[in-house]
Amino acid sequence: MLSVTAYAAPSATEGLIPTTIERRDVGPHDVLIEIKFAGICHSDIHTVRGEWGPQQYPLAPGHEIAGIVTEVGPEVTKHAVGDRVGVGCMVNSCRDCVNCRKGEEQYCLAGSIGTYGTVDRDGTITQGGYSTHVVVTEDFVVSIPEGISLDAAAPLLCAGITTYSPLRHWGAGPGRKVAVVGLGGLGHMAVKLASAMGAEVTVLSQSLKKQEDGLKLGADHYYATSDENTFTELAGSFDLIINTVSAPLDISAYLQLLALDGALVNVGAPAEPLPVNAFSLIMGRRSFAGSMIGGIRETQEMLDFCAEHGLGAEIEVIPASRINDAYERVLASDVRYRFVIDTSTLG
Amino acid sequence: MLSVTAYAAPSATEGLIPTTIERRDVGPHDVLIEIKFAGICHSDIHTVRGEWGPQQYPLAPGHEIAGIVTEVGPEVTKHAVGDRVGVGCMVNSCRDCVNCRKGEEQYCLAGSIGTYGTVDRDGTITQGGYSTHVVVTEDFVVSIPEGISLDAAAPLLCAGITTYSPLRHWGAGPGRKVAVVGLGGLGHMAVKLASAMGAEVTVLSQSLKKQEDGLKLGADHYYATSDENTFTELAGSFDLIINTVSAPLDISAYLQLLALDGALVNVGAPAEPLPVNAFSLIMGRRSFAGSMIGGIRETQEMLDFCAEHGLGAEIEVIPASRINDAYERVLASDVRYRFVIDTSTLG
Repeated sequence: MLSVTAYAAPSATEGLIPTTIERRDVGPHDVLIEIKFAGICHSDIHTVRGEWGPQQYPLAPGHEIAGIVTEVGPEVTKHAVGDRVGVGCMVNSCRDCVNCRKGEEQYCLAGSIGTYGTVDRDGTITQGGYSTHVVVTEDFVVSIPEGISLDAAAPLLCAGITTYSPLRHWGAGPGRKVAVVGLGGLGHMAVKLASAMGAEVTVLSQSLKKQEDGLKLGADHYYATSDENTFTELAGSFDLIINTVSAPLDISAYLQLLALDGALVNVGAPAEPLPVNAFSLIMGRRSFAGSMIGGIRETQEMLDFCAEHGLGAEIEVIPASRINDAYERVLASDVRYRFVIDTSTLG
Repeated sequence: MLSVTAYAAPSATEGLIPTTIERRDVGPHDVLIEIKFAGICHSDIHTVRGEWGPQQYPLAPGHEIAGIVTEVGPEVTKHAVGDRVGVGCMVNSCRDCVNCRKGEEQYCLAGSIGTYGTVDRDGTITQGGYSTHVVVTEDFVVSIPEGISLDAAAPLLCAGITTYSPLRHWGAGPGRKVAVVGLGGLGHMAVKLASAMGAEVTVLSQSLKKQEDGLKLGADHYYATSDENTFTELAGSFDLIINTVSAPLDISAYLQLLALDGALVNVGAPAEPLPVNAFSLIMGRRSFAGSMIGGIRETQEMLDFCAEHGLGAEIEVIPASRINDAYERVLASDVRYRFVIDTSTLG
């Protein structure tokens, strides 16, 4: 076992504090990664606070991990010491079900193993990336191309792939009109990615506060959803709407913004059920759909795409001592657009 | 103007009675059809009773029309006197919008003209198929192939195309598992069509009452949804679920029956919004979608498919005098599987 430094929540109601956690010994197929940067995702906050179900504590969150390989097991072939690598929301899956075999490990029928707060296949509880090191089986480690700095790469492992995957699956590209609801950590990546894919991109945000940013990130249009006219003016416009807002929205109103065969895709999920008017679906053969991160192969594809197009996340790098403040700022939507922890400050 | 015999509702609260309605003179692009059979669709009842909005009366419903051409306008090229033809739920559309140009006239952005109870482009209110004759522009008249009898063909114009279109759009065929929710007028056609397309078909019905029928119609499996075990046993099973039930169902429970990338498609719409658990969508990249009838080109394709596979609706032919009784039996789900009016009894 390796004892490593981490920032972890001692309980659901306390702030994160410096502590020590255990990592398993490097097995034959494992990679030991010296974590350089870890992004802060809104779901880290939900999870450590027990809002998505009870947890075991102490719990170190973090599933946007970028670092350097410092040791590999004897059977490892995909990564070598010194490689720049990333780990996202999963660190394992059954490898055997129909979805795993398709490379869609995030939909593993046995349940993929989350990077933190999940019972791993060896019975231990996984611990996340707010830490100096992590041991991960090589198949769930991706390569970060030279073109992307490690700090800007970290958020791609969750915010990037969560938006890239549905954009690809629903065919964002030239001639397609894509709307992105919400310009936060996920939304700003959705805008960058959809724009790089060649789609015509519209941001639908509560206000026009971030309009200048949105256009700079690659959006062609920017509308405030607090303005009723937006829903009239844009009715029937979009082929695809990526909804990055986890708070409950008026889904039927957004469905009306879709053209024939359009899809509204939720990448977040509010706890309460969303009322959907079936007429909004039937009139225009529209779909209300959901999507969850992406498979490992697709995560690598996304990183390569980002390198090719010079894309990374917009970040604010912070020392570990500011994690709890950062949480409050995330909850207040006061970040443009992702906090990234410099893990050299953890000690 | 032509005065023709019909059965019509004098008001939202009275039964249908024999009456006379007007048809426009046969214009250059029009076809005069002597109606032989007209199916009774559940939506006829909703509409004449004002449950889907206020109507003008007297109103003759009926949008499952099969008959013979008895006159054509001078510019008509698609149909000739003596042809066996059908008319479904639409009799016109703008012809100019992006959806009409795609052949998806049912999604006409200006609003397609319903076969009854809709303001036509000439300002008159359309009247439906419970009548001896109808005048329709040739583009909205389809040919009924010799292989299908006119009485069994009539319901194909609504129940047939409403299920054929989503089955095709979502790729029902060999190697695909399709479930049909509800074994009524629409459901029984969905089973026949999906089976003929080569899919593995499961009926999900409230009880096992119609199981023998369902298997005879082509279903491979039959489950009662009143049995809780059904939802456990079939979790993650289907690529496509066609929901023909207009009453509100527990959509999130049915979504759990879908495999990765599966779609639950409503072809009917309850008035009240349906609560949807976004997690059910996100876990498995599932879609909740809607579909409305089909375009004219696809309606013809469906009729040709039915002729090729020897398919027609299962019907109970009735004289006009039994329409009001038939309405009560439709509401009580006491029909296997479609009432068809013999219009020779209208006089």
